[in-house]
Order: sequence, then C-alpha cells, then structure tokens
Amino acid sequence: RRCGYPEVIYAPGKSVEALVQTFQRLLTERQNGLATRCSSEQISALQAQVPEAIVNTVARTVRWNRAEPESGKVAVVAAGTSDRPIAEEAVETLRWMNVSVDLVMDVGVAGPQRFLQEKHRLEGAGAVVVVAGMEGALPSVVAGWVACPVIAVPTSVGYGASFGGLTALLGMLNSCAANVAVVNIDAGFKGGYLAGMIARQTIQ
Amino acid sequence: RRCGYPEVIYAPGKSVEALVQTFQRLLTERQNGLATRCSSEQISALQAQVPEAIVNTVARTVRWNRAEPESGKVAVVAAGTSDRPIAEEAVETLRWMNVSVDLVMDVGVAGPQRFLQEKHRLEGAGAVVVVAGMEGALPSVVAGWVACPVIAVPTSVGYGASFGGLTALLGMLNSCAANVAVVNIDAGFKGGYLAGMIARQTIQ
Amino acid sequence: RRCGYPEVIYAPGKSVEALVQTFQRLLTERQNGLATRCSSEQISALQAQVPEAIVNTVARTVRWNRAEPESGKVAVVAAGTSDRPIAEEAVETLRWMNVSVDLVMDVGVAGPQRFLQEKHRLEGAGAVVVVAGMEGALPSVVAGWVACPVIAVPTSVGYGASFGGLTALLGMLNSCAANVAVVNIDAGFKGGYLAGMIARQTIQ
Amino acid sequence: RRCGYPEVIYAPGKSVEALVQTFQRLLTERQNGLATRCSSEQISALQAQVPEAIVNTVARTVRWNRAEPESGKVAVVAAGTSDRPIAEEAVETLRWMNVSVDLVMDVGVAGPQRFLQEKHRLEGAGAVVVVAGMEGALPSVVAGWVACPVIAVPTSVGYGASFGGLTALLGMLNSCAANVAVVNIDAGFKGGYLAGMIARQTIQ
Amino acid sequence: RRCGYPEVIYAPGKSVEALVQTFQRLLTERQNGLATRCSSEQISALQAQVPEAIVNTVARTVRWNRAEPESGKVAVVAAGTSDRPIAEEAVETLRWMNVSVDLVMDVGVAGPQRFLQEKHRLEGAGAVVVVAGMEGALPSVVAGWVACPVIAVPTSVGYGASFGGLTALLGMLNSCAANVAVVNIDAGFKGGYLAGMIARQTIQ
Amino acid sequence: RRCGYPEVIYAPGKSVEALVQTFQRLLTERQNGLATRCSSEQISALQAQVPEAIVNTVARTVRWNRAEPESGKVAVVAAGTSDRPIAEEAVETLRWMNVSVDLVMDVGVAGPQRFLQEKHRLEGAGAVVVVAGMEGALPSVVAGWVACPVIAVPTSVGYGASFGGLTALLGMLNSCAANVAVVNIDAGFKGGYLAGMIARQTIQ
Amino acid sequence: RRCGYPEVIYAPGKSVEALVQTFQRLLTERQNGLATRCSSEQISALQAQVPEAIVNTVARTVRWNRAEPESGKVAVVAAGTSDRPIAEEAVETLRWMNVSVDLVMDVGVAGPQRFLQEKHRLEGAGAVVVVAGMEGALPSVVAGWVACPVIAVPTSVGYGASFGGLTALLGMLNSCAANVAVVNIDAGFKGGYLAGMIARQTIQ
Amino acid sequence: RRCGYPEVIYAPGKSVEALVQTFQRLLTERQNGLATRCSSEQISALQAQVPEAIVNTVARTVRWNRAEPESGKVAVVAAGTSDRPIAEEAVETLRWMNVSVDLVMDVGVAGPQRFLQEKHRLEGAGAVVVVAGMEGALPSVVAGWVACPVIAVPTSVGYGASFGGLTALLGMLNSCAANVAVVNIDAGFKGGYLAGMIARQTIQ
Ligand SMILES: Nc1ncnc2c1ncn2[C@@H]1O[C@H](COP(=O)(O)O)[C@@H](O)[C@H]1O
Ligand SMILES: Nc1ncnc2c1ncn2[C@@H]1O[C@H](COP(=O)(O)O)[C@@H](O)[C@H]1O
Ligand SMILES: Nc1ncnc2c1ncn2[C@@H]1O[C@H](COP(=O)(O)O)[C@@H](O)[C@H]1O
Ligand SMILES: Nc1ncnc2c1ncn2[C@@H]1O[C@H](COP(=O)(O)O)[C@@H](O)[C@H]1O
Ligand SMILES: [Mg+2]
Ligand SMILES: [Mg+2]
Ligand SMILES: [Mg+2]
Ligand SMILES: [Mg+2]
Ligand SMILES: [Mg+2]
Ligand SMILES: [Mg+2]
Ligand SMILES: [Mg+2]
Ligand SMILES: [Mg+2]
Repeated sequence: RRCGYPEVIYAPGKSVEALVQTFQRLLTERQNGLATRCSSEQISALQAQVPEAIVNTVARTVRWNRAEPESGKVAVVAAGTSDRPIAEEAVETLRWMNVSVDLVMDVGVAGPQRFLQEKHRLEGAGAVVVVAGMEGALPSVVAGWVACPVIAVPTSVGYGASFGGLTALLGMLNSCAANVAVVNIDAGFKGGYLAGMIARQTIQ
Repeated sequence: RRCGYPEVIYAPGKSVEALVQTFQRLLTERQNGLATRCSSEQISALQAQVPEAIVNTVARTVRWNRAEPESGKVAVVAAGTSDRPIAEEAVETLRWMNVSVDLVMDVGVAGPQRFLQEKHRLEGAGAVVVVAGMEGALPSVVAGWVACPVIAVPTSVGYGASFGGLTALLGMLNSCAANVAVVNIDAGFKGGYLAGMIARQTIQ
Repeated sequence: RRCGYPEVIYAPGKSVEALVQTFQRLLTERQNGLATRCSSEQISALQAQVPEAIVNTVARTVRWNRAEPESGKVAVVAAGTSDRPIAEEAVETLRWMNVSVDLVMDVGVAGPQRFLQEKHRLEGAGAVVVVAGMEGALPSVVAGWVACPVIAVPTSVGYGASFGGLTALLGMLNSCAANVAVVNIDAGFKGGYLAGMIARQTIQ
Repeated sequence: RRCGYPEVIYAPGKSVEALVQTFQRLLTERQNGLATRCSSEQISALQAQVPEAIVNTVARTVRWNRAEPESGKVAVVAAGTSDRPIAEEAVETLRWMNVSVDLVMDVGVAGPQRFLQEKHRLEGAGAVVVVAGMEGALPSVVAGWVACPVIAVPTSVGYGASFGGLTALLGMLNSCAANVAVVNIDAGFKGGYLAGMIARQTIQ
Repeated sequence: RRCGYPEVIYAPGKSVEALVQTFQRLLTERQNGLATRCSSEQISALQAQVPEAIVNTVARTVRWNRAEPESGKVAVVAAGTSDRPIAEEAVETLRWMNVSVDLVMDVGVAGPQRFLQEKHRLEGAGAVVVVAGMEGALPSVVAGWVACPVIAVPTSVGYGASFGGLTALLGMLNSCAANVAVVNIDAGFKGGYLAGMIARQTIQ
Repeated sequence: RRCGYPEVIYAPGKSVEALVQTFQRLLTERQNGLATRCSSEQISALQAQVPEAIVNTVARTVRWNRAEPESGKVAVVAAGTSDRPIAEEAVETLRWMNVSVDLVMDVGVAGPQRFLQEKHRLEGAGAVVVVAGMEGALPSVVAGWVACPVIAVPTSVGYGASFGGLTALLGMLNSCAANVAVVNIDAGFKGGYLAGMIARQTIQ
Repeated sequence: RRCGYPEVIYAPGKSVEALVQTFQRLLTERQNGLATRCSSEQISALQAQVPEAIVNTVARTVRWNRAEPESGKVAVVAAGTSDRPIAEEAVETLRWMNVSVDLVMDVGVAGPQRFLQEKHRLEGAGAVVVVAGMEGALPSVVAGWVACPVIAVPTSVGYGASFGGLTALLGMLNSCAANVAVVNIDAGFKGGYLAGMIARQTIQ
Repeated sequence: RRCGYPEVIYAPGKSVEALVQTFQRLLTERQNGLATRCSSEQISALQAQVPEAIVNTVARTVRWNRAEPESGKVAVVAAGTSDRPIAEEAVETLRWMNVSVDLVMDVGVAGPQRFLQEKHRLEGAGAVVVVAGMEGALPSVVAGWVACPVIAVPTSVGYGASFGGLTALLGMLNSCAANVAVVNIDAGFKGGYLAGMIARQTIQ
C-alpha cells in the first residue's frame, strides 16, 4: 500500500480534461473512482462523459464503485445545515467504500433534547463521524454516549472568532472524551475514510 | 461610579506592606474589601494584621464585608477539580457582594448524566457562572438548560493545544447558545462580579 | 429551554425557499420570528412573501413580533459609522424582544467630549451594549460611567493590525473595568439578546 | 457509557492524598485503574500505599488491571529518544487495556532505512500509534506502508519554530495520507486509548 | 550618527565584568552612560565600582550624565502600579538626556475622573509617553487631550488573553487617535528616548 | 482638542453622498479637508462637486487646504514601487498640513548603494517617514543615518510569510535603532500626520 | 553586487507599460531579463513587444537570456500537480541562469515507492529544490537520500489547517535533516536562484 | 546517506551516561563526533571521560574530529553579543567539518559603518552564515554585499514582540535579497552544517 489513495481524485486545480481522463482510466481498469471538491463545471463534464457515475452536488463528489454487499456500519452526525456539504462528503466516501451509513442531521443547534432523541441511530456503529463548526463541542457530547471511536471533522462554518474552523479544530483536539480523534478542517473525505476503515475491520 | 472597583485589590505586584495598608484603610473607611490573587505570603500578613478578614486559600482571596441580608442568587458551575481555584474566586466575590451562591463542582468531566443530575440546583438563579478549561464546551451545554444569562470563564487548565486557555476562550465565544457572554481567561473575579451585578438587579 | 433560539434564523447558507418557508412557519405558529444576516436577495423574497415583516436593510434583519408593552431598557452605543450595521442588528434584536432601546451613535471617533455629552442617555438602562472596532477601547470608557452590565461587541471594522476584529476582541476581554463581558466579533444579535435578557429581568 | 473515563486519573493538580484515595477506591471496587502524568512524589506515595500497582517512571504512569488474555494488537512507533515518555504513556495505556503492544523506537531520526528495517513489526496491527515531534512527518511515512488506521500523537519535543508541538500537530493534520487521525499534543494516553479501542474491535 | 546608541548598554546577557568595564570606559571618555535592565547583581557591582552613578532599582537602570540645563519637557503617564518599572525606565532615560520629566502615575485603573484631574500636568510637553498594559486603551484617551505626539509603550502587565503585552500593543497600533506612535512591548527606554528627542527639538 | 481629527475623513464605508456633503461642509466652514482611501467612484464625485479639491489617484486622497507658507520639513522614504500608494498618502497628508515634503522612492530593493546616494536628501528634516513592506528592514537602515525621529509605516506589500504586513510590523517594532516608532500597517496618513506634527514644532 | 537582483522583475503591481519598458531596457543593455508572477495580460503584452522572450504560462514567467553552455546541475522535485506552478518558476529561473535542470514531478502524493523510483535522477546535482505544500514533509524524505544542500520551498497548496502554506513552512524549518534550508512560501524564484548559485560554484 | 547526521548528538534529554557512551562509541569507530546543546553537567562528564575532546562552553559543544587539511571557507557573521552562543555553535560545527571559518562579531548593533569596515573578511567565502535576533535585518544587509549563498540563523534574542525569535525568522524569510535561505530559530548547528556543505563543494 501507499501514501494517499490512488482511486481518490482531489479535483481543485485539475483541468476538466485531466479530471475526466483520470476518472475514465480508473473505470477502464475496473477500479472504484471517487472525485472530491469538484466544481460545477467539473461535475457537468464528468456527468456527460461518464454517465454511470453517481453525482452528489451538495457534497460536490462524483463516484463510481462496484456494487458489493455492505460491510461495516458508520453514523455521520452533523451539527447544522451549513455543515451539510462536509457531512455529505463523508457519506459519499462511505458509500463508495460500500460501508453502511446513516446521516443524522441538525442535532447541534437544536439543543440537548435533539441529540438525545436521535442517539439510538448510533447503536451498532463501528465508528461515528461528527461534523461541526463554530465551537466544535458536538464530538464531546456524542462521544459521551458511544463506545466506539469518534472521528471529529471541524468545519469552517462560523464567523468572527471561529477563524475559518480553527476554533472548532482546537476544541475537538482538547475534547475531554478519550475516544475522539481529529482530522483537518473541512476534511469530510478523511473523516469518512477513517471511519469506514475502522468499521470494515470491526467484528459485528 | 468609576472604571475598576476601588474596594477590590489585585494583589500581584503589590508589596506586602502596601497591600495590608490598602486593606486596612478600606476597613477604617467602613468599606467592604476584597483582595484577589494573593500569594501565601500576602495571605499570612493579611491574616496577622486583619484578624476579622475571611481567607480562602484555594481561591487565594481575602475579604471583609458587612454582613447584609443576601440579595440575588447565582450558581457557579465548574467542569473539573483543576478549575476549582477560579470557581472559588467567583464564589468569594459573590459572597463579598452578599449574593447567595451555590457551587456545583465536577460536572464537566463526569459525562452527560452528571450535569443532568445537578441541573435543578440552577433553578431560580439570576445568572450562572460556568468555569471550564480544555475545550470549554460546558457553557454551551449549561446554557441550553437555563433561561438566564451565562457568564463563561475560560481557564488555563489543560495541556498541548489548549494554549493556556485560548482554546476554551475561543470555544466559549463561538458558543451556539445565545445567552453566553465571556470574560478573560482565569477571570473568576470578573465572572462572579458580573453575575452578582445581574442577579442583584433581578426581579425575584 | 434549549440551546440556540428556535425563532431566530441565521440566514447565511440557507436557500431563499428554505428561509421563507421557515419564517412563514413561525408566523403560522404565532411565534415571533427574526432572521439575521440576510442577503438582499433573501430580504426581497421575505418582503414579497411576508409583507407584515419589518425589514432593516442596514442591520440586514427581517423580523415579526407581536406588539407587546415594552419591558426593560437597553442602550446600544456605537463607536463609528462603520459599526452601524452591527449596532442595528443589536437594536432590531431588542425591538423583537419588546425591550425599549436607544441607539447612541458615533461617540467613539469624536473625542472624549462627544461621549460625555450623550452619557445621560444611558441612565436607567438595565444593560448597555457597546459596539466598537479597531482598538475596542469604548467599552472600558462607557463601563466607567454606568452601574449595570456592559455587553461588549467587537466589530471587524478596521484595517492592518485590527486583524478582522481580533484586536478589538482582545482589548475588550482585557478591559480594566469589572462590569464588561464580551461576545463574538460582529455578534450584534448576541449582544442585543443578552442585554435584553438582563434588562427584562431587572427591577425598575 | 460516559464522557471521560472513570478509571483514568489525570494526576496534575491533584493532592497526593486525593490521588491515592481515588486509586484505592478503584481497586476496592475491583475496577482497573490508571493514573497518568504523575509527579515523582505522587508515584512514591502510590507505590507505598498500593504495592500491587505497576509503575512506569518514564511514562509517569501507575496502573493496576486484572490480567486478562490479550485481545487486539497495536504498534507504537516513536521518532526519537525524546519522544519516549509520550510513547511509553501510550504503551502503558494499551497494557492496561490488555491489548498486545509492540514499541518501535528511534525510527524517525535515523534515516529512511531505519523505518524500512522495522516495518515488518507493524504487520497484523489493528491500529498504529505514531509519536513524533519537530516537523511531525513520521505518521505520513508510516501511513504509506500500513492498511489500518494511524493515530498520530504530536509531541512538544523540538526547539525554535516547533512552538511546543504546534508544528508537529499542524503537519499531522495536513498529512497527505488518508488514514491518519490526530490527537492533542503529548496526548500519549488518548493515542493509546483510541488505538486500543480500534484494535480490540478488529476481526483477526 | 549610528544605529543603536553607543552610550546605552542593554545589560541582559552581559557578564558583570564586561558591563562594569564598558560603563567605566564611557566615563573615562567623558561620555554619558546608561545601563538598562540590570539584574540586582549587576546593579551592586556598578554601584561598588562607579560610586558616582545614579541607580534606580525600580527601573533597573544605572546612569551617569553630565549635569546640563534641562531642555525640552516630557510627561510620562502610567496606567497602574504594575506598569511602574517600565514608566521609570522612560523617566530615567529622559533624565539622562537632561530633558525635564513629570511622571503621572495610576491614571488608568482609577476611572475617568482620575486622568481628568491630572491632565493639566501634560500642558507644555513636547511629547507624552503613555505606558499601559492589559487592553492598552490609555494612549487613545490621553491623545484626545493633547496636541503633541504620544509615544505609546505597551507593557506585559496583565493575565489571560493579554498575551504578554500583545493585546496592549495591537490596541495601541489601532488607536483611533492620529497622534499615537508605538514602540515594542516593555520598551520604556525607546519610549523615553523618542519623546526626549522630539521634546528637545521643539520650539517652546 | 479631540481624539481623531475632525477635518480628516476616512472614506471606506461612507456613501458618495455623505462623503461629498461632509467635504463640502468643511469648505463652507473654511476648514481644511482631507479624505483618504477614496474609491474611484468617490474621487469622481468629489472632483465633480468640489472642483477646487486636489486629487491624488495613487494615494487615493482628495484634499483642500488654505495655501500657507510651509513650516517644518519631512522626508518620506519608500522601499519599492508597490509601497508608493502608502507613501503618497503620507505625502498628501503633509502637503495638506503645509509641511515641506520630499519623497525618496525605491531605495529599498535597489541595494545598499541606492540609499547611500540619496541620504543627503534627509538632511534638515524634523522627522522621516519610512514606508516598507516584506521584511520591513528599511527603517533600521535609515534610522542609523539620521538624528531625528523615524516614523515607520509597515505595508501589506509582500507574499507568503509576509502575512499582510505583520512581518514588516514586527520587524519595525524590534528595530535595533532607538529612534524608530511604528504606526499601523498601511497607515500612510498616520505616519505623515505624526511626522508633520513633529516637524512643525521643530526649531530650525 | 547588490541587494535584490536588477535583471529580475517582480511583476505584481506594475503597469503593463512599465513592465514592458523595463524588460526592453534590459535587452537593449544586453542583460538577461526575467519577469516573474506575470498576469496573463502582462504576458500577452510582453509576447507582443518582445517576440524573442520565452514564456512559461504555468510558471507565469517571461525570460530572455543569452544562450551559454550550461554549468552546474539542479534537480527540482515537486510533491503534487498543484505545486507545479511554483516548481516551474524555479525551473525557469534555473534555465535563465543556464543551469542544467531536471523536474521530478508528483513524487509526494504517490506513496513511498514513487520517490524511490525517481531518486536516481538526483544523482550529480549540486543542489536540490523541493517544492511541497500541505504538511511539507517531502524535503525531509528527499534530504535523507542526497549529500548536497536541499532548498525547501513551501507552497500555499492545501486547505483547512494548512494556513496558506504556514504549516508546510514550519514543518520544513523543523526538518530533522541537517541539510535543509528554507525560503518563503511560494518562493519558486528564490528556491531556484539559491540552488543555481550553489550548483554553479560546485566542483564537478 | 541518511536523514540526520549520525555523528552529531543532540544532547538535551539524554542522560549523562547515554551521552558519554554514544560519544565514546563514535571515537572507537574512528568517526568524528559532535555533541551540541550540552548542559554544564554533560560537558564535565564528557571532558572527564574523553580528555581529547574539544569543548566550547559558549557554544555548549563538545567535538572530536580527525585533523585534516581545511577545505572550503565560511564566514560567520553575528549581530550582537547575545547572539554569540548560536554563532559559536555554527563555528564549532564548521571546525568539526574541517572547513576554514572566520567569526565576525557585533556588526549588527554597531551601526552601518561597523559592517562596512569588516565586509572584506567575507571575500572568498563559499557561503556566509548570518546570526541575528530581534528584527533579523542583518542577513539582508550582508546579502547585498556578497555573491555567495547566505544562510540566515534567527535567534531567540530580544524581548517583547520578538516572540522568541519568530520576528527575526519571518523577517529573514521575507528578505528582499535573493541569496538568503533560512534555518530554524537558534539552529547554529544547521546553519554551520549547510554553509560547510556548500563551501566544501565550491570551486576555489
Ligand atoms: N477532499 C479531500 N480531502 C483530503 N484529501 C483528499 C480529498 N480528496 C482526495 N484526497 C487525497 O488526495 C489524494 C489524491 O490527490 P491528487 O493526486 O492530487 O488527486 C488521494 O489519494 C486522497 O488521499
Ligand atoms: N482577580 C482579578 N481579576 C481581574 N481584575 C481584578 C481582579 N482583582 C481585582 N481586579 C480589578 O483590579 C482593580 C484593582 O486593581 P489595583 O488598583 O491594581 O489593585 C479592581 O478595581 C478590579 O476591577
Ligand atoms: N487613512 C487613514 N488611516 C487611519 N486613520 C485615518 C485615516 N483617514 C482618516 N483617519 C482617522 O479617521 C478619523 C475620521 O474617521 P471618520 O469620522 O470615520 O471619517 C480621522 O479623525 C482620522 O483620525
Ligand atoms: N543543535 C542542533 N540543532 C538541530 N539539529 C541538531 C542539533 N544537534 C544535532 N542535531 C541533529 O540531531 C541529530 C541527532 O539527534 P539525536 O539522535 O537525538 O542525538 C543529528 O543527526 C543532527 O542532524
Ligand atoms: Mg458546533
Ligand atoms: Mg472543559
Ligand atoms: Mg473602537
Ligand atoms: Mg518528528
Ligand atoms: Mg491598560
Ligand atoms: Mg521592505
Ligand atoms: Mg506536501
Ligand atoms: Mg538583529
């Protein structure tokens, strides 16, 4: 194995032609393919040239993967509507890995009761991805109710002293819960990928 | 009225003689007196010279105030044992203001159930002071359960990327709860003072 | 009660349709509604669909609230013209809460006499909101003349080493005055909300 | 389950008496106990009062755990000699969890060949902990050779622009490898705990 | 003329012998001499070897200068007691330059009236040095009442988010007053030197 | 006198109408007027409505001042072409104050000889303004050759680790030369104003 | 010789006319000329007016140099596609210096094997330029395999906590390899220039 | 070859026994040995056990190297007395590499003339190391007078806004001179090592 992941294309800074060509080569080689952070122009080109690819315009992803039986289970929990694109990037990454995924939205801003109502949906997950911006407190709250690893994804959602996600990142790193690890700001792909890796190797 | 508070002495950098003299002058003038952040040497001198003063060695405060009927009610909530000195500084400030105060300790590190068990103690408070270090998530959690202002006091408790309280400070400023205002790192006096001011002017 | 405030909509990142729909639902449920940080497009749509809503284009707010007798009094003090949008956001929040509000403008850049001439307007306030950018010194000055809590709102107004409001934020946190608490940069809503909460519970 | 971990004691700021008493109560309740970041004074007291406890003076830990068959396998990889105390804290945490652990030392400063010689020791691990200071590049290098999650622990080892571990932390968060998650600076306990949790739930 | 100032010795990091020898050479050459930031050990040695030197233990300075008629007038204004050592360093520098100097103490923490009572002492000054820590608001206040340049000296006095003087420095750089220039944190010498230079070249 | 300077208008955030009206009122009152940081739209409007005003499109200033005999002399020294707008803002401020001004351009990037050739132009100046970005070393170099105060203006010119002028600002604050004071990043107006104030009160 | 480099033009902020004129003057004087960071408009103008100039649109450079026999050898190694513009700027600088240059692309994201396959191309180089963003680990890896100086160029490529290249910069400064020196973020010209200077003075 | 340099021992955090043993093994293997950043205790032990080792107490280094004819020439230039320990660390590294070295002290604080008087000593050097703290301007000045690479070593010398060498580091990275590369704060070893590597491979 290698650093990075050959089948995952980070689209920013790639020309439409180069992107389409790389994606098509993956399909020709019968490899799964995932392109993240695609511009709308890149998405249109991929849709036109690779009709079998599955597009998620909120996540800004394009993927193709062999349908295999799902293995492993992950819950993706997001604090608010503005965190949705990053949460969906994690979700698409997990679908592309053929991991079963449940997206639990809007449990951050809606007060303590909101998450308590939804927390049963986390049962049986091998890992949980928690996506939150601003003060980034949600992973600590979630981690207190589960017995599996929590991958915290800070987002750049916020204003003022949120400093583009830095406040959420620092909060998550200092979580009082022992089962929280952190990835880069807005790194939905990484959050999903790690959670998927853990869930797939989990005894069920 | 004036900037600062004449009867409150910030002890660091003051000689023992100057400190004792200022404190005694307040008593002679029949003013309430509060000295904060006293060293053990300063505390010993004040105890020797002003036997009627009330010392709190955890808070590192010395105070004297006319016993008046209590007016207003404040709860001081602290996340962990290491936050105790700052929480006690807030408590002493409130006692010195003759405000009724209840100190709720160790509700941060002990998981979600811990705070839920104690939250009835916040009922009837005109303001709540929340003292927490590390990721500083406790004020958001508390604020979701009360209908009064929450004064958040970040502490320098933590290690690594807690950056001497900066992470807690930033987290509290970005709280998703609308009823949270913030004071300086380790500013137990200010947190207590503001909460006391609010509570005293509250209709009960 | 809950974290966040159900009737307050933070508009950025919401589609025009979602925003209008949420606002209309609040009215249907006879709840007060306040939308903050609306784009001009969002404002136009809300005006067209909800004609009874009250728009403030400087504050970028849209609100609807049952007319109730005013209760509590707050003064909003702003340093300069550029701070006006944030100050107006605080004002609109207070109107929506049916709190009596007086906006004192341009007392920061106009020299020491300017504020002294206006300070009588702060009398009787249960709380004062002070909005200022650049060095953020105005809350310290104001706090020296009032006996109630001061909620300081740093703004991103300034250039160079104002670092998008960070300098004002830090200055306000370090205020020598004991009655100053701080909210996030440009957080006019939060400043107004906290002041309104304090003023409403104040004995007059 | 709950936030934090009841059986783990963070020793800084605790009195020797409080620490010993808490540790003894855990044993009385037949719970496993782990105390981290103990001072030499705290270690001596625990050794005297709880002779069956296992001390690691490099890691500054004291633990007691029921001997159970090991389950799961983790490799702890450390860059240099100065990172050893943090690496040992992770190792002790894993032993306390009854997870099989292999400590691979000094593969960072000794050049590319050094790690290549040792990498066979990572085979079969359910998770790898990588401990490194200074530029924090080691997790990226290790992650390229394994197919399991890597938990990166930045250390405060370094000088000048290492900024107490901040440079290592940022480097690890920006790792080009998709299977790297990060915990707080010097957080050997958290790194070990997460890796142990993953390894224990892994199919072998 | 040259960069630096030959007759001024920055004592930290110099051996006692080297310091005494340099100071004595200046006297032999009939040059004025000023040593700043001396340790108590360095002060004792200079006092023993150069009895005619004038020591200020608060400022930690040792100086010798030919008595000349004073020329120019400067006021040094300090916010609080803890800022005194830096203010005195400025005062000693001005005395060494034979500039007339008036030290106005404790006008920062004592509220708005305090400075208004003392401001007549600034009349006729060719420049004013303002020394303040914490939020560093004093230079803005002073600058509004004088028609000459204000040299602002931020100090490292404060705690929490004062960040060793950084908050005061940033506040002073963003002063809304046009006649404020700033020097380094704790740079009492530089503040005094610049003010003295301006005052000496001023028409009276 | 007052904080700020009534006759100086900071244009950003002002409507064209408000700006023109304020400028015209100054002229009606026979006051000098200076508007800084004007947009091209604002400049066009001022030119159309106030034909006697003097425009500098590089400095983005508009001014009107009574022609008086010049008093005092200032040199404005700029490192490179990109620093020109800020240097011209200082120059226009000085012209508006009727201070004699000489602009010495491009002495930073052109090597040591370049400044040595031009340094005779600084003779007789009561103050020197030095405008530089990137590493901000020019004030130290200039200050070594003059016996008057140097007002250093850091600019946001640069890339990468120049951090929008922060590097230049920090460099200037740490200048080894004793006669350097600093103003905010890109604060050409403040640099010119302070230098003009010093030069006008200088004995010639 | 002088500070800066007369024949190298930093294009940003220069008018098209000034840029063309400066470039043409260099050719008239038979000097080599290099313009960096040109906009597409500036490139078009230079191409139209100076047809013999060599344009690189990826590097955004325009150069003209007398064809001389190559002297010295440098390898430029780049981590990923997005780093290409900066790597090409280094390459063009070296061509303009008549230094032999080999560009080794995409060895960062493609895992450990990728660089090992290409490292023979670094043999015989007098210096190596390594261009990388995100965590900036590539220079450490490369430096371990060569016996010559490595000039590390951090790039602003990345997202989230890459902070515009700051993370890569700090990582490179803390490299555990002794033969790594660093230049500014995105400073392809400087990296190439220094490597060329070293390679040209190298014994072969 | 390998990352790091086997014969160089970074002493901090090593026990006296481990350090002596490593040093003695190098000698036994007839390898050159260099230990840097030794404490006085470590130095005493090395002197006692390895009498042939050469100690420099200012540099805090201990070295042993086979006397070989010197090859290559480097000048080490230091700004002030406080920078001496770092400059000497560079010097000792160069001696250990058998490179000819000239140490030019105190050219920073002593004004422009001072360096001009000494610059002839840089002639013929294959590389120059410049060691400076505070604003870190010296490398720019030196680089303007030499035609070889300059390795800039920022030091933690300074106070206030020097931020432990960060200001000097940033200034050096933004140097307007093209021939300046930078190493970590206080990295005298790295500066000397790189300069020695360049000088040894230089045609003379
Ligand atoms: N959204 C993303 N966030 C972080 N890393 C990504 C993302 N998408 C792809 N990657 C990584 O980038 C690598 C591909 O980079 P590239 O070769 O530039 O397309 C993959 O192997 C992934 O590890
Ligand atoms: N622990 C504290 N934290 C923050 N401010 C304090 C504290 N104790 C006292 N003060 C403030 O410091 C002022 C007194 O400062 P001083 O005159 O130096 O003793 C009081 O008026 C208070 O406003
Ligand atoms: N370019 C500038 N930079 C900094 N301060 C300025 C500038 N132009 C004007 N000012 C200050 O801003 C004040 C006017 O602000 P305003 O009332 O908003 O127009 C003046 O009194 C000046 O002190
Ligand atoms: N003063 C120093 N500054 C930076 N790196 C050093 C220093 N001294 C030694 N080193 C590096 O540290 C490595 C040895 O580290 P260690 O194995 O921990 O002794 C050597 O190969 C050098 O590259
Ligand atoms: Mg959140
Ligand atoms: Mg906490
Ligand atoms: Mg302001
Ligand atoms: Mg490392
Ligand atoms: Mg102050
Ligand atoms: Mg410059
Ligand atoms: Mg990279
Ligand atoms: Mg220096």
